[in-house]
Amino acid sequence: MKKKAVVLGVDIGGTTSSFAFIDHDGCCLAETTVPTLPDKPAADFVESLCKEVRQSFAPFTARYELIGIGVGAPNANYYTGIVQCPVNLNWDDRVPIAELFRSRFDLPVAVTNDANAAALGEMKYGVAREMRNFISITLGTGLGSGIVVNGEIVYGADGFAGELGHTVVDPAGRLCGCGKRGCLETYVSAPGLCRTVFSLLAERKEESVLRKFSFQDLTAKEVFTAAQNQDCLALEAFDVTGRILGIKLADAVALTSPEAFIFHGGLSAAGDLLLIAAHRSMEENLLQIYRGRIPLLLSGLPGSNAGVLGAGALIWHELKK
Amino acid sequence: MKKKAVVLGVDIGGTTSSFAFIDHDGCCLAETTVPTLPDKPAADFVESLCKEVRQSFAPFTARYELIGIGVGAPNANYYTGIVQCPVNLNWDDRVPIAELFRSRFDLPVAVTNDANAAALGEMKYGVAREMRNFISITLGTGLGSGIVVNGEIVYGADGFAGELGHTVVDPAGRLCGCGKRGCLETYVSAPGLCRTVFSLLAERKEESVLRKFSFQDLTAKEVFTAAQNQDCLALEAFDVTGRILGIKLADAVALTSPEAFIFHGGLSAAGDLLLIAAHRSMEENLLQIYRGRIPLLLSGLPGSNAGVLGAGALIWHELKK
Repeated sequence: MKKKAVVLGVDIGGTTSSFAFIDHDGCCLAETTVPTLPDKPAADFVESLCKEVRQSFAPFTARYELIGIGVGAPNANYYTGIVQCPVNLNWDDRVPIAELFRSRFDLPVAVTNDANAAALGEMKYGVAREMRNFISITLGTGLGSGIVVNGEIVYGADGFAGELGHTVVDPAGRLCGCGKRGCLETYVSAPGLCRTVFSLLAERKEESVLRKFSFQDLTAKEVFTAAQNQDCLALEAFDVTGRILGIKLADAVALTSPEAFIFHGGLSAAGDLLLIAAHRSMEENLLQIYRGRIPLLLSGLPGSNAGVLGAGALIWHELKK
Repeated sequence: MKKKAVVLGVDIGGTTSSFAFIDHDGCCLAETTVPTLPDKPAADFVESLCKEVRQSFAPFTARYELIGIGVGAPNANYYTGIVQCPVNLNWDDRVPIAELFRSRFDLPVAVTNDANAAALGEMKYGVAREMRNFISITLGTGLGSGIVVNGEIVYGADGFAGELGHTVVDPAGRLCGCGKRGCLETYVSAPGLCRTVFSLLAERKEESVLRKFSFQDLTAKEVFTAAQNQDCLALEAFDVTGRILGIKLADAVALTSPEAFIFHGGLSAAGDLLLIAAHRSMEENLLQIYRGRIPLLLSGLPGSNAGVLGAGALIWHELKK
């Protein structure tokens, strides 16, 4: 019997990473999530990940053939295959991530930014299937984005385009993991939301269940639960976060005029709590010609795992070339 | 003798408009500048412009054949041929600019944003000839921009991409001609520079030759002359303007990772007075991966008339299809 071809899709995040074996139609086998080990060298992480991959694939070797590997990782460069200065990972400045996988599997490997991978997944298998111009935004440990213009990912001159998370909200603002101040992701991300809560706790006098948390214990999930229970500071933290996001969405519209924004990642699970404020603020800051036309959509991918599917979509696309 | 083919390139600006007859290699005949008549209906302006065009072309009819018309105008839509809600012109909300020209000449007409036309001119005939990813910025009555990704203008979902001038510096900031507050062009443009001068005059006590001007009399040219004479408030006005510009350039880099920015238009004649501060501020707000790699260039086109050459480049491109 001829074996069915699948690719390995790997989505490396700041906290956790996922992988799956994906066929041409986007069906996933053995989707697995592992911790990213951000404080260990990249090679150790890839080694332990590859061990998991081999174990996961073992039951399928009789019927499936692995023909390529797609990897989405923070600051991964499509052109060079290198992860350069990853903001939320304590890795070397230049990690040859494509080579690390290639040397272990002897298969074609393509890499891109994890947020670009999410955009590719959405375009191939998700809510952006009919779109040729859209922006995909991943809200988690950081804020990643993938920009699609005329049906193609915008890689830019050097492969590093699509860093909406490091646009400037306030040049004198919060210190960012990248070393700059006031980057969007210091306000709009899971840790950014928590920082906003602590600002509000300091400024206001209202009662809040969030007053009992230490900075190191507070998570976006606790803020979400508090907001669902109508905690006024938690609601305001989401509102502030959404308003800041909306302004930068409006800027992105002015530059690239997308059909929609598509949200992925843990914080996007907050849905309306975040996106209603973001949409209102975006609309207020849009030129009249764009108003009322650009929806904020949630990922339509199964399990919201656009990253893994996108990494798969990336290598399927390369193998077709 | 076979006549040589030329196109008409028209660049419509907020204050003045220019046209020329352009051959395939970018050689210009009879370049002419006329006032734009921003307060009259668009049809009257096009009528008077076309009269000028016929007069200018009359001496050339024996040797040249006019085969098409390219038009760059504020808020002109490449897809529809319509100028929609032009911010600095007192025209109707929807002016069918392509049709106004087509009905008078019975020739193929293509239109785009005047800033996109400038980018096309730079890519075909100027300093961006070797570039596939860059952003062209026109500094004049407003701030226009044309974004090139993978060798193509970014038109976006609806043809209205590339409005860097209407990204948000401060949502509660200066009122803009577009009806919003705090748009980049209220700070970075010829009138924006003058507004900054008046802010500084109000805040500071320093002597300045600019204290003798009324708001309606002050022009960017006066500020430029004062700065050249080391007037400290004029120098500071350029510095403030450059710093704000630099932050938004950094944002544009984060989204599209261009090889360079290319500047056109009256205010860009200030050169280093503006661009040194802009470059420093851009660098401070860039992710490390982009630093030191993105020059701010002045237009390399003859007479700096990228708009007219770009409008010509646009229609040559269409005629080839």
